Formats: sequence, C-alpha cells, structure tokens
Amino acid sequence: MMRILRRKVFVVFIVIVGLISICSFWFSCASSNDLTKQDDAFYRDVSHLTNRYAQPESLLIGQQLKQLQEKSSEVKDADADPDDIPYEEIETSVNDEYTVVGRREGDEVYLPFFGFIQKYFEVYGRLTDNKQRFIFEHSYSKIYKPNGMYTPTGIFMSFEHYNVEVRDRVKCISGIEGVPLSTQWGAHGYYYPIQIAQYGLSHFSKFLIEDKPSVTVYENGEDCTDMEWQVSGPASHVRCVPDDEIDSDVLAFKTPESLGNPGALFHLDEDSNFFMSLDLKFITNGSITVLVETKAKSAPLFHIHYACSQTLIHATGNEIYYGIGDRQTWSHMTRDIPTDFQKGLTLLYPKQKKLKMKFAVRRIVSITLHGTGYVDNITFSSVTHLAQFYYAANWLVRHQDRTGGWPIMVTRKLGTFDSLDPGWYSAMAQGQAISLLTRAYIRTKKEMYLQSALRATKVLNINSQDGGVRATFMDKYVWYEEYPTNPSSFVLNGFIYSLIGLYDLKTIAPPELSGEAEKLFKQGMTSLKHMLPLFDTGLGSIYDLRHVTLGVAPNRARWDYHSTHINQLLLLSTIDNAPILKNTAERWTGYMIGKRAAHN
Amino acid sequence: MMRILRRKVFVVFIVIVGLISICSFWFSCASSNDLTKQDDAFYRDVSHLTNRYAQPESLLIGQQLKQLQEKSSEVKDADADPDDIPYEEIETSVNDEYTVVGRREGDEVYLPFFGFIQKYFEVYGRLTDNKQRFIFEHSYSKIYKPNGMYTPTGIFMSFEHYNVEVRDRVKCISGIEGVPLSTQWGAHGYYYPIQIAQYGLSHFSKFLIEDKPSVTVYENGEDCTDMEWQVSGPASHVRCVPDDEIDSDVLAFKTPESLGNPGALFHLDEDSNFFMSLDLKFITNGSITVLVETKAKSAPLFHIHYACSQTLIHATGNEIYYGIGDRQTWSHMTRDIPTDFQKGLTLLYPKQKKLKMKFAVRRIVSITLHGTGYVDNITFSSVTHLAQFYYAANWLVRHQDRTGGWPIMVTRKLGTFDSLDPGWYSAMAQGQAISLLTRAYIRTKKEMYLQSALRATKVLNINSQDGGVRATFMDKYVWYEEYPTNPSSFVLNGFIYSLIGLYDLKTIAPPELSGEAEKLFKQGMTSLKHMLPLFDTGLGSIYDLRHVTLGVAPNRARWDYHSTHINQLLLLSTIDNAPILKNTAERWTGYMIGKRAAHN
Repeated sequence: MMRILRRKVFVVFIVIVGLISICSFWFSCASSNDLTKQDDAFYRDVSHLTNRYAQPESLLIGQQLKQLQEKSSEVKDADADPDDIPYEEIETSVNDEYTVVGRREGDEVYLPFFGFIQKYFEVYGRLTDNKQRFIFEHSYSKIYKPNGMYTPTGIFMSFEHYNVEVRDRVKCISGIEGVPLSTQWGAHGYYYPIQIAQYGLSHFSKFLIEDKPSVTVYENGEDCTDMEWQVSGPASHVRCVPDDEIDSDVLAFKTPESLGNPGALFHLDEDSNFFMSLDLKFITNGSITVLVETKAKSAPLFHIHYACSQTLIHATGNEIYYGIGDRQTWSHMTRDIPTDFQKGLTLLYPKQKKLKMKFAVRRIVSITLHGTGYVDNITFSSVTHLAQFYYAANWLVRHQDRTGGWPIMVTRKLGTFDSLDPGWYSAMAQGQAISLLTRAYIRTKKEMYLQSALRATKVLNINSQDGGVRATFMDKYVWYEEYPTNPSSFVLNGFIYSLIGLYDLKTIAPPELSGEAEKLFKQGMTSLKHMLPLFDTGLGSIYDLRHVTLGVAPNRARWDYHSTHINQLLLLSTIDNAPILKNTAERWTGYMIGKRAAHN
Repeated sequence: MMRILRRKVFVVFIVIVGLISICSFWFSCASSNDLTKQDDAFYRDVSHLTNRYAQPESLLIGQQLKQLQEKSSEVKDADADPDDIPYEEIETSVNDEYTVVGRREGDEVYLPFFGFIQKYFEVYGRLTDNKQRFIFEHSYSKIYKPNGMYTPTGIFMSFEHYNVEVRDRVKCISGIEGVPLSTQWGAHGYYYPIQIAQYGLSHFSKFLIEDKPSVTVYENGEDCTDMEWQVSGPASHVRCVPDDEIDSDVLAFKTPESLGNPGALFHLDEDSNFFMSLDLKFITNGSITVLVETKAKSAPLFHIHYACSQTLIHATGNEIYYGIGDRQTWSHMTRDIPTDFQKGLTLLYPKQKKLKMKFAVRRIVSITLHGTGYVDNITFSSVTHLAQFYYAANWLVRHQDRTGGWPIMVTRKLGTFDSLDPGWYSAMAQGQAISLLTRAYIRTKKEMYLQSALRATKVLNINSQDGGVRATFMDKYVWYEEYPTNPSSFVLNGFIYSLIGLYDLKTIAPPELSGEAEKLFKQGMTSLKHMLPLFDTGLGSIYDLRHVTLGVAPNRARWDYHSTHINQLLLLSTIDNAPILKNTAERWTGYMIGKRAAHN
C-alpha cells in the first residue's frame, strides 16, 4: 500500500505543474459528485438487497435484474470513466473459510469470475470480441423444442444432432458387423446395444431431414468398354462377367493376395463423396484398399485396407487395417471412409487429438483390389444414413437372445452399487432397440423387425433380482431400470427411453400384438407422473434415486443429462397432455438460465 | 468512450511536462509486463476452468479455491496497484437474457455483487471495516452442535436461543392466560399451541443454563413497620392483615377504583429487575399500575395498567392496559414488564419499529394499587423463566380437548393446498406440547402433566381425512403432519418435532404407559430414515413434499428452516446412530457454506 501512496503523492505533483492550464478542464468534468449522488440513489433502490437478513426473493426474475442493471448502466453511462470512483482491491472473506481478492468501487463490490465465481457456483463464462465482451452462461447444454407431435416413424427425439461414431468412446465401426464398438467401460471394446441403437436412430433421423445425398456409381460391371483398372503382370486380370446368383454383370478380379503386390488399381480422384459402398464376394483371401489424401500440408497418403480377417482394427505407419470377415458369399459393404480414417489415426497417434482436425480427408485417390473374387456396384456417396440404420437394426435382430434381450457383456459399476456382471440387461437398451426396430419394420414391412421388437418387451416384465430390469418404487410404482442394480437405482433418462420404445411399439404393432407394450407403457407412465417430482431439486434435476435407495448424497444430473431429461419430457408432452410433463419441462428449462423454484 | 480517450491524451501531456524528473521513477516500477507474464502463468494454471465445455467439478472444495486464490493473491501482491493492469468496464451477457456491466483486468473479469451476484445466486454480503473488507456469506443462518446426548429433562434442541415473546407476530402476553397470543395468520390474534409450547420450552431451556436470577422481595406483608405506601384521603388505606386462606400475612388495600384517583403508591426505583410477580385477590374491580421510565432522552413516563378486565391489551397516549380478568380469588401473576411495555409501544407506534430500541425500559419508578383487595409477595426479578414455563404448561393442560388435541382456531392456507379451517390439529403442536408437558411432569411429578402428554398422542393415530394428523407416503410410510392437508404435505421440521415429543414421552413415562408413544416413535423414525433423502436437493433441503403430492415446484427450505432441519437431525443422531441421520446433517451443513453434492 505504501508504494501506492507514494505514487499518488507524486501524481499530485505532476498535476500541479500543469494546474493553471488545466483548471478549466477540471471544471468541465467535475462530475464525480453527481456520480456519487446517482450512485447513492441507485444503491438506495437496491438497498433491500444489501440487508444481510433480507429473505432472498422467491424466484429469480430476469426482468427485475434487467431493470436493476439498466439503472446501473445509466449511472455508468452518465460518466463512463471508472477513474472517477475510487477503485481498489478488497479482501473478501468467503463463508469465513478462505479469502478472495475482489474489487471495490464506492459501495459496489466486484468478484473475480475465473478466480472464484466460476468454480464456486458451477457456471460458465468466456471473453469474446477481443476481450471487449463477456459471455456468462448458467449451463453449457441445449434444449431442442419438438416441432409437432412425436411419431414412431419420424425423427427420434433430437437424435438428428447425434454423431455417435465420432465419439472418443467409439473405438471404430466394425468391418464385419457394420456397427460401432464401445470402449466406455472396457478398453478392449464391446458391442453396446444402446450405442448401436443410437447409432441407427441418429442416422435414421438424419436421413429424414437431410437433402438427397450426391451419389457416384464408379463401376457396376454393366459396361466394360471404359475399363480403367490397372493390373500388372499376365497372372492378374479384371473382367466383366455375368453372375447368375445375383443376376447381374459384375467384375471378376484376380491378383496376388499380398498387399506387397500392386494388385488391381482404379483411379477415382473423389473429393466430396466419401462413403464407399459395394457388393463383393471373395474366392480367396483378399482385400479392398482405399488410398486417402488428407488436408494436412506435406502429410503422407494413408492406405485403408479392408481385408478378409477377423481382426477388428489395426494400424501402423500410414497403413490402417479393418477386418471384414471372409466374405465367401455375396455381401454388401458400406464404409464411412472419414470415420474409418479417424479411428485409425487415433490408434496411430493416441495422444494427439488435434491431428484429427488437420488430417481430415481431402480426397480419395484410388481403390485397389487384392486376391480373387467378384465386386459390383462400386459407389461413393456424400452420406449413406440408411445403410448405417440397417446395419444397426440387423445387428439387433442377429444378436437378440432367447429372453428377447441384448445382454451387455461388460462389467458396469454404478456409483457405490454392487457391480453388474457381464450379461446384464438394460431397459434403455431394450427401449432404444425397440424404437429402432419399429422404424425398420415400418420402412421394410419385414416381420423379423416387428417380431424382434415384440420379443424385446419380455425383459421389462422380469424383476431385476431375477435377471430382468423391472424395479418397484416403495412397493408401488413399476420402473424399468437402465441399470438393474440391487437396490434399485431408478435412473430417469434410461427409464423414459424405455417408455418411448414401448410407445413406438404399441403404436405401430397390429392390435392383436400391441397389448403387452400398451400395458407396460401405461404402467410406466403412471410411475413417471408420480415419481418425476422426486428428481426435481428446484435448481436442477437428479440423475437417479440412489440417494433414496442407498441413503447417500443425491446424484445431481450434469447439464447435458438435465437437458436430455427436458428433451424427453417435451417429447412425451406431445403424446400425453398430463400437465406434470409440460410444466416440469418448462420449469427445468428455466433452471438452465439460473431460475429457481421458490423457497418458503 | 471518446471522453476517456481525450482525457488520456491530456494526461499524457502532463506526464511529458515532468518527464525528465520522473523517468528514473518510471523505470523503478516498470512492472506491468512482469505482471502480465505472471497473470498469463496464473490463467494458464486455471485455464481448464475457462473451457466452456469443461465438466464442472464434482464437489466444490474450499481448499482448492483457497489455493486458487492464494495464487491469485501472490500475483496481485507482486504489484498491488490495480492501475498497472488496464482496467475497464465490460458488458456481460447473462444467459443471453440481459446484460450486466462488469470490470475486466487482463484476462480476469469481475462481476458486481450487489448489482448482480447477490440476487442471481441468492447469497449474502456486506462491507465492513470502513468498506475495507467484504464479507461473503452463502447462508444467513446458524447451526448449534449439541453437546452430549439429548435428554427429555434437559435443554430442548437449541431453544435456549429462542425469544418467542419478542417476535413481531406475538401480539402480547395475555394478562389472563400468561401466554403469547399470535397474529401470524390472523390479525385479530389467536392462541397458537406451537408458539405457546415453544415459549415454555425456550424459557425452560434458558432456566437450565442461566445463572440464578437476582430477586428483590419488595413487600411480603410480614413486616408492617416499614410501610412506604402513600395513600391519599381517609377513605383509602393499606394494612397488613393475616389471611387464613393462604395462611400468611398479606397487604389489604382499599382505594377508589378509578385510575383518575391517586390510589395507593409504592416507590421502587428498580433499575435492573424488571420481571414483576405477586399474589393477589380483588374484592372490587381494581388494577395494579407500573410506572416505567425509558432510556429515551426527554421521553415521557409510561403507565402500564394491569386491570380487572377481559380486554387483552389497549394503549393510548402514554397509557398501556392489560386485562387480567376479575381475580376474585387468590392467584399468582408474573409479568415481563419490558415485553409488556414493548407490545404496548407497538400498538401506540405501529410504524416506528426503531422506537422499541430507544424506548427500552431503564427504570421502574413505582407501582400503584386501585380498588379493594389483597396483595402479597411483591417481587421483582431479573428473569422468571420457570413462571413462563408453567404458564405455558398449564395453558396446555387447561385447553386440551377430549381428543387429546389442541385445536388451532385460525384458518391456515398452505401453498396451493385447500385451506385448513379453524379447529385443525397439528402433529407439531402435539409433539412440542408433549415435550413441554414431560418436562413439567419431571420437575413437579404432577400427574396432570403426564396424563395430558399421554392423551396428546391420540391425535397422531387419527388420519388427516378423519380430522387427525396421520398421513401415509405412497401407502407405505406413516407421517405425522404439521399441517393435515389433503393431499398430504409432509412438512419435515414439524414431523421431526412430533418425533422428539414422542421420544420424550416414551422415555419418561412409566413402562406400563409408554407403549403407545414407543410404537408411534418407532414408526415415525422408520419413515424418517427412508424419506429423509426426498428432502435433499444436493445444495439445500426442501421444506415439504408438496411437489410430490401436488405435482408443483419443490418448496425449497429457506436457510433458517434448513438449519432447523440440521439442528433436529443432530439432536436425533445423539439418540439414534443410524448413519443416515448423522451423514445427512453433515452434508446439509456443508450446503450452508456453498458445498454441493457431486453431479454425475
């Protein structure tokens, strides 16, 4: 403080030097008094706020604060130079626990956002416009208001905004199964039915809203006149031949299997359509290789090899390998080249996340065939959402077990609950799978999808302790558990997803088959309407009811789960007009901008 | 902003004038760069906080913030003059809803406490030490840690800190009943058993911890030699006479009833013991008048008249009147003169609350008798806690109805519940009455207190819809309702007070009589242990479960109710070692200094 004083004295001296010449100036801006007066007036207006014993207002009303702030701004605008009010550091005692250094101007105290407020109150902020503007945000998450009534054939909630495959916890898209493999709870990777269903539902939803994709068919085997395949050596060839099995002209190719050999090469120079699809059948082992050029300057080209192998993914140097199984019979294959490339990069450079941006795919240079076999309909598209959708739907049909469930083959440890051992079912998996299968059924009318969806409801009728997912709250309300823990955990978002699945099924299934889904849906909605308030804190929502069943602290939902709760309630309120759904969604939306339920 | 610029240019000119003489000084403090560097370093350290997508930390740990702040202080201390960092106003967008004017220094942003933070986050703050220090408080309320195990014969919770009679909602202490009259929900005033029980319990608790009061017996009628009574006129007299009924010498007095007449006057000059007690019996109408001198300079003297009348209280000019009934038989009367005086003042000057401080009682000048009757044992004491305690206990015995309840004769409207019509019972009233009556029984061994307490349990066995107070949560857990609303409201603090009453009774009642209280207590504790988590928001507590039964917003408990919850749980955890009680109390105490339950 002494230093400050010395300097102030000194500044006074300087001022005196030029005093005569400046006194007129001083008079022209003797406004500090006015300001003080105005300040007094302002602080009188809000003086009730400064009374430590004043009861806090029942509900924070942005409008009131707005007015408050406009007043405050007026005052500032009246003379915008902060120098006119003594501005100094002030030690602030926080709950008598520790101190924070703030700033004081007159009777107003300013507290540091990054040094205190942000972490203390769990809020968010950032400087923008060259540090000329500050953005304060109560929540980092987003609400998607549904436009119109929810239908089992339409967009799934707000899943058109999901990009499952790019998530870090997705190891890659299997070349054999065509669906994502999760590493969320097991580094080795496992098929997670919830993730697979969300993968399919997000692509289905994107398909419904996006423009027709651009598609280039490079080779359909019908027209052999303009063959551009480069083969080296007399032992290799690429020929057009008729194929009786699929009743179409196809390409027959024969080259050495070894990747060391040039193989049969086809130039593309494709710079916009990065989703490759083709039909193929191998006689020997073989592979299809895609050569990728990235956006990074002076970066090497990368090879992505889709090879007859059971290996999931492998990468070394500039080579990325995906196993696609033996493919001894005709099968269709669709690959998302940019995603396959990114997942390979993650294996090659696990630490350097930024690489993914720099190394984005700019161009697909060529494809190369090795081994002996047949290929047809080599197509590149801007997107292939329906392909991903059916990959997911078909995976679910193939992997559903006798009980109608999709057992999850990873250990799940939820909070302080006992671990769930591999093989557990999830009501959320059952529900989202049903939502996906009903959409597949509606589009294809294939019975297998409907039957799989109907079988999936069985698990919801089996109690958790008997290996199912059904819990009962206080011996009264039935609940379908995302995690069938013991005691029950009552996770809200997973339960609602199961209800949406049941709604989809009971709506699209023929009357003679929809009874079970109808019954389970009604039971669940009754529970939801009575139990929803248990998840309301008055400032946010709670993720589950572990605090009730374990007697521990409530597990508050972070903002992205809170917004999921809201999006789900907004969806349900388009198909059920119970006020509790709409009102809760509205109140919970307010919480995201700092509104609070009243206190007594 | 232009004005600021012009001024800055001008200041530069002044600086040049004295430049040569000061350049050495400038060099000596060219530290702004260093500071910027240090700032950078500091903000790099906390940069993870500034990432808008960073997940908030699971639990606010004061220690972490402490370190954060120490860092920050180091930086500031390195050069404590804020002028060294460019300091300017910065417009802050709050949730894209309205703007607040903050301050920016380098990369730190300061937000105004009184203009924004206080109301937005519902926190408290005040400037102290001549505005050199700022006190930030998350809560305005206080926790009282119990010392030792709770006993039904000891202090009641933290009621030794209660001062029921001074509350604004207490109209006055009845001269006939000797207990407070409430105006909380009815301006006309009504006897509220909860308030009366708390009045008695607080005085009982004070009695246990306070030193022996100082007592002056001014007149016991035994010694007539030093009679100092001034009477005017032959028709008036004050004599010592024996009284067979109470087997003691007493004062017989005879003066005109009219207050216009001097009456019989006794000088006291009492400046410390302001609690008057005496035994009296009137033959005619009459009164006892106390002359009060206040601490206010040049203020008039006030008369407080205790007159044979049914009027509760009346005040005009400098005269305050309390009706004390006809008193045709010997009865004891104790009056808290300062409180009687303050309540009178409130009637005389309803608007001017500050008067109460200025007009505190300094001296009791005299007492005057009017009418014909007998008086004995005129005593003034510093306090008379047991008197207030027995006034309350006896009121409860006198006013208990056939059902064992104390019907509340005022309409109670709780939130959006249907109103409770006059005559409703409250489990809290029953419980607190029981706690008071058990203490009265223990001190006096009078059966009437025990019998009254035992009868009081009956109401807890009657369902709310049948006129009682018993509710059941989700058809499973029994609850005793502070407000027997329909649907049930499950008010937490009232329920716990009823449990404490039951504990007191089952503990002190002889085994053959304690069964019912024992059963009700056990049932209630089971409910509490299972339902307590429903009142936990992770940042505070909820007052009741109206959000569950009405489907409305949760009714968050303001901090003084939150601290009551904690004080109650701390009490229960001394008599029941279930972890849920102790752990919840600890966690809820943390909420009062800004700690939060973890989020997922």
